[in-house]
Amino acid sequence: MTQVYDRVALIGLGLIASSMFWSIKRGGLVGEVTGYARSAETRDTAREIGLCDRICDTAAEAVKDADLVVLCVPVGAMGAVAAEIAPHLKPGATISDVGSVKQSVIDTVGPHLPEGVHFVPAHPLAGTEHSGPKSGFAELFDNRWCLLVPVPNSDPEAVAKLRALWEGIGSNVEEMDAEHHDLVLAVTSHTPHLIAYTMVGVADDLRRVTDSEVIKYSAAGFRDFTRIAASDPTMWRDVFLTNKDATLEILGRFTEELFALQRAIRTGDGDMLHAYFTRTRAIRRGILEAGQDVDAPDFGRGKAAK
Amino acid sequence: MTQVYDRVALIGLGLIASSMFWSIKRGGLVGEVTGYARSAETRDTAREIGLCDRICDTAAEAVKDADLVVLCVPVGAMGAVAAEIAPHLKPGATISDVGSVKQSVIDTVGPHLPEGVHFVPAHPLAGTEHSGPKSGFAELFDNRWCLLVPVPNSDPEAVAKLRALWEGIGSNVEEMDAEHHDLVLAVTSHTPHLIAYTMVGVADDLRRVTDSEVIKYSAAGFRDFTRIAASDPTMWRDVFLTNKDATLEILGRFTEELFALQRAIRTGDGDMLHAYFTRTRAIRRGILEAGQDVDAPDFGRGKAAK
Repeated sequence: MTQVYDRVALIGLGLIASSMFWSIKRGGLVGEVTGYARSAETRDTAREIGLCDRICDTAAEAVKDADLVVLCVPVGAMGAVAAEIAPHLKPGATISDVGSVKQSVIDTVGPHLPEGVHFVPAHPLAGTEHSGPKSGFAELFDNRWCLLVPVPNSDPEAVAKLRALWEGIGSNVEEMDAEHHDLVLAVTSHTPHLIAYTMVGVADDLRRVTDSEVIKYSAAGFRDFTRIAASDPTMWRDVFLTNKDATLEILGRFTEELFALQRAIRTGDGDMLHAYFTRTRAIRRGILEAGQDVDAPDFGRGKAAK
Repeated sequence: MTQVYDRVALIGLGLIASSMFWSIKRGGLVGEVTGYARSAETRDTAREIGLCDRICDTAAEAVKDADLVVLCVPVGAMGAVAAEIAPHLKPGATISDVGSVKQSVIDTVGPHLPEGVHFVPAHPLAGTEHSGPKSGFAELFDNRWCLLVPVPNSDPEAVAKLRALWEGIGSNVEEMDAEHHDLVLAVTSHTPHLIAYTMVGVADDLRRVTDSEVIKYSAAGFRDFTRIAASDPTMWRDVFLTNKDATLEILGRFTEELFALQRAIRTGDGDMLHAYFTRTRAIRRGILEAGQDVDAPDFGRGKAAK
């Protein structure tokens, strides 16, 4: 693999940044990777486990001379971090991010950036229910999508280099505009997460009535929701606050459909239910054919548990 | 392992019955297992793959001289099957089932059973998104729960023998009454499935607008819903129609909570969202501690995919 950048700075050292680092090392994609996290405890942990070639005690120091700076903080913190590092960016540097919402990042980060710095927002579609500097692993992005969301004046060469980095990391790269990105993610990620959080919250209320049965008998379907609902609370709070319009639109469609199914249950309309459940089954096949999941029964848990 | 029954009949040859058979063979738990399925095609498939010691062309033949008969058909079909086999049951035989709803099975199967036959309803909490005679495997029930739901006049010795069979199959066994079972399952299984079906249906509608993007970018959370929503349509139609009251009650709580979260998003109440998401995270830890899931990131998909 060829080196893509001389120096890259990762700001924020959670699941995504730590996975990027291990993947960058695996591919030999960058000369030196610096890292910064606001919490001294996180910086200490990073130093202990060898995360990043150099951990800096200030964001300014981390971004100094970096050819690429990647903001890996929750979407709600992006604007403040951009304001903090802006005066220290190298002329001609590229600044990117990994936020799950793109229009908000463009609106809050963009205005802080000086002339001559290239802004190329990005969003790798990968994650697990774990968070923090120890949760990363090099394979996280393998065969997953990374969406680049160039702004109107993004430099084509800067976009091409960032694409090369993500391809080297193992991702498939696509470009789209911010509005479209935020709608697609509201469907494929943000609304499903909100629904999973809600279902787990309902069960938690009920757990007080039925002792710990909800946990004990979770394998019947519920535990898949708990995995999704175990994701980082700060990250997800920011996602919903910053992708408000698209999330509320998809939620509106969701409740409309749910009420239709609820009515079918109440009135005993078995044909409607059967037709609906048959239609949704076909989508699963599409995902398997697209190589975005494995066909092992129950996610291959039977084997993983042994 | 000691033999528990001389002869067992499995009526219906889908995921659960086929997994039971392989598991019974693994443990040497039964002398002879007969099998019957309504469809000739399923019976042919079963014969081809060696599923059951003997496949019979009628249900009457399959249950003849059986010490235990297990109904492994969708809940909505249980009553008709019970009526069909009742005249052919051996005096002193035990009849059980594997249905996901218990009060309905008791109401529809019970009245058909002759005097001297023991009725012990049961529900193994295990499954995958696959169905049909080829989908079974011996490990499906290992370390999963099987709930026995004895009726008021169930013979204790018949209950004890059925418990021994399920323990031999690999399950942990608990007993509870039908009403409680149906409520617990509405929370841990039935409502989560309905919600997953709904979310996948919404995305399918939207897919027409956004081409195949929903499938392409499903790894961001959505694909876990598609697995749940790929389960057998007939089985799930019957579950919702027969566990109507409990499902509608939990759905009512769900929409109430969802609207509270929706309002928090609309009004920008980040504190409420953060507190909610923090609370739900704790449930996941409970499930891991209870040994009902594995802690591998992303269900260990990274490794499974390789």
